Amino acid sequence: MVKEIEGGVTAAQGFRAAGIHAAIKKRKKDLAIVVSDQPAVVAGVFTKNKVVAAPLVVDKAQLEKSPRARAIVVNSGNANACTGERGMNDAWCMVNTAAKALALPADEVLVSSTGVIGQTLPMDNVVSGINTAAPLLSREGHADAAEAIMTTDTFVKEAAVTVNLAGVDVAIGGMAKGSGMIAPNMATMLAFVTTDARLSPAVMQGALRLAADRSFNRISVDGDMSTNDMVLLMANGAAGGPEITSTSDPSYGAFYDALEHVLTRLSKMIVMDGEGATKFVEVRVVEAASEEAAAQAARAIANSSLVKTAINGEDANWGRILAAVGYSGIDFNPDDTEISFGGLPILRRNYAVDFSEEEAKKVLSEKEIVITVSLHQGNASATFWTCDLSKAYVDINANYRT
Amino acid sequence: MVKEIEGGVTAAQGFRAAGIHAAIKKRKKDLAIVVSDQPAVVAGVFTKNKVVAAPLVVDKAQLEKSPRARAIVVNSGNANACTGERGMNDAWCMVNTAAKALALPADEVLVSSTGVIGQTLPMDNVVSGINTAAPLLSREGHADAAEAIMTTDTFVKEAAVTVNLAGVDVAIGGMAKGSGMIAPNMATMLAFVTTDARLSPAVMQGALRLAADRSFNRISVDGDMSTNDMVLLMANGAAGGPEITSTSDPSYGAFYDALEHVLTRLSKMIVMDGEGATKFVEVRVVEAASEEAAAQAARAIANSSLVKTAINGEDANWGRILAAVGYSGIDFNPDDTEISFGGLPILRRNYAVDFSEEEAKKVLSEKEIVITVSLHQGNASATFWTCDLSKAYVDINANYRT
Repeated sequence: MVKEIEGGVTAAQGFRAAGIHAAIKKRKKDLAIVVSDQPAVVAGVFTKNKVVAAPLVVDKAQLEKSPRARAIVVNSGNANACTGERGMNDAWCMVNTAAKALALPADEVLVSSTGVIGQTLPMDNVVSGINTAAPLLSREGHADAAEAIMTTDTFVKEAAVTVNLAGVDVAIGGMAKGSGMIAPNMATMLAFVTTDARLSPAVMQGALRLAADRSFNRISVDGDMSTNDMVLLMANGAAGGPEITSTSDPSYGAFYDALEHVLTRLSKMIVMDGEGATKFVEVRVVEAASEEAAAQAARAIANSSLVKTAINGEDANWGRILAAVGYSGIDFNPDDTEISFGGLPILRRNYAVDFSEEEAKKVLSEKEIVITVSLHQGNASATFWTCDLSKAYVDINANYRT
Repeated sequence: MVKEIEGGVTAAQGFRAAGIHAAIKKRKKDLAIVVSDQPAVVAGVFTKNKVVAAPLVVDKAQLEKSPRARAIVVNSGNANACTGERGMNDAWCMVNTAAKALALPADEVLVSSTGVIGQTLPMDNVVSGINTAAPLLSREGHADAAEAIMTTDTFVKEAAVTVNLAGVDVAIGGMAKGSGMIAPNMATMLAFVTTDARLSPAVMQGALRLAADRSFNRISVDGDMSTNDMVLLMANGAAGGPEITSTSDPSYGAFYDALEHVLTRLSKMIVMDGEGATKFVEVRVVEAASEEAAAQAARAIANSSLVKTAINGEDANWGRILAAVGYSGIDFNPDDTEISFGGLPILRRNYAVDFSEEEAKKVLSEKEIVITVSLHQGNASATFWTCDLSKAYVDINANYRT
């Protein structure tokens, strides 16, 4: 049903994008604009950090006024976070500059920033950058835009799919940036997703919230939560077809699956590009009492420095995994727990341990590793994605201003 | 009032200890016994991990029967965790063997283990080790005992004080082991503290719980919680003097302060011996609304991989500290927050940042660093102790079975 296609954030009809160098960063592209040719419904999820960057304050205010927008302006190289009143003014200035350059009402423009915390934006460069980018908007601009939101990501992160809803082919596509952060505090996770499907604001917000919970909220590089994280989804209905106004709509399930597919693809790319990562790890907790408990256990495993260093060392260290489930806070019986790496059973019920070190070594020498933990409690499951913890992570994060 | 003295776990009158090599580990001492010459009241705090090692199950059962004991037997080199029914039998066998060797009732013996998870104890060696150690018990044995509970700790951890309670000098002394863990899963934190003061079981349990919350529960090496963590406090009343039966007793405050002093000293030693640690970091959150909120914020800072790597790189990265407070879950106003390193103000209210990079570098180049975060909300405060995150940590934890 869901088919992967090219095109990133402009894979859906009626969207254009551009990405340029506005001299916020020294040399690399650092300013992106995404525009919908017609008003689009917007859903958003934002960081739960109490320290919230200025653009997030602006966007929440904009979306509270109306869940509709035409444009998103994003800069990298500076997070506009912890910048006080000056930062708020700068974020509103970005909104107004873009509105003027694109001939849109100011309340249809959203903003986003990623980069260094605690420094004010070079507004002259930002303003002239917006004016330079506006005339360059095109259907082909998705790759430039995806490049312009990168900080120290090592590759561009785009994904798109097409899915048939009630006889109409719609597209969902997006771009993201992750936590490659040689420079300080660049832990921001940003994702911008567009679709030409037509949805009511409430249904769209619910779909985005759930899909983000199952994708972006299930990845872990180092467990630190940023001040700038945001995911925005714009739906402009350009594909035609009826509006989805309820989760019981026959098309809702197919739309949701396609959305989760795109968000999961982008999430995995962020983990693969994790700082210093040498291995991609999928943590599956299965046969849990509830999806919530499964996710809680999977999160504890994925965040454990001891588990992540063991994976780095290709060590079948099941004790660290079981101990992480133990402190995750869920109710479970350790005696009933089973753990496998790849398809290889490592720990069976009642602490029966009998595996070939050679086979375990082989599984763990792969670039992609699946850890499965079965709790034998019920039918619920959850999957988390993480990377190993390497010496390169420490290198990257210890030395940036020296 | 509180005066530091020598003597570790036998600084208090009426306690003897021994530590020997029982061949659980290859060469190093690995079995310790601590005995009180008269029945002692015992208080204990145990790991909250749902995966609980066999000796903790045994001790909880023993203390539930009666909060009194005469002896503690500890082995290192093997955690007797995740060992099922066999492990439970082995823990009880340690109890019974020690009871026989020491001519004590079995319900007056406690046990503790630390080391590899998921392997069964070499019981022949453990039994003969207990029988070898029993005749060696002496007032001078504290250093041997402290050495025998080490796993990959790089130094012995002992502390003791004397304090005058209502005209009587009493001693409180103890030993601990930390999280130096080249071998797998040796994240165990153990501490055994003795005193010749006389306290009722309820008052003593309350004092230990509070003092442990403010010491051992305020240190962080890597945020992973062990299956074997425990702190035991024995009070035998050998110093004479009246029994402390209430927290409103005039001597209670002095006893509590002395106890917290010993536990804090041991806690700091564990952090200083943290795996790969190159710096000792004290995180003080002050002017908070409550001690609980202050501790919650301090814990988030102390556990942040980004903060710990920044310290490793001697980088005055205040944004990572503020972001950690932001996701700690406490209510606070980032605009009012101030941060300093050593005595050097780094961030002032309303994001005013103006410090000399040179001076900051000097403060951060020290071996011991104090981070102070002022929330300007109230009068409560809390202190946490942690270490930096270095490449050596990854080295130690990635490679153990290879």
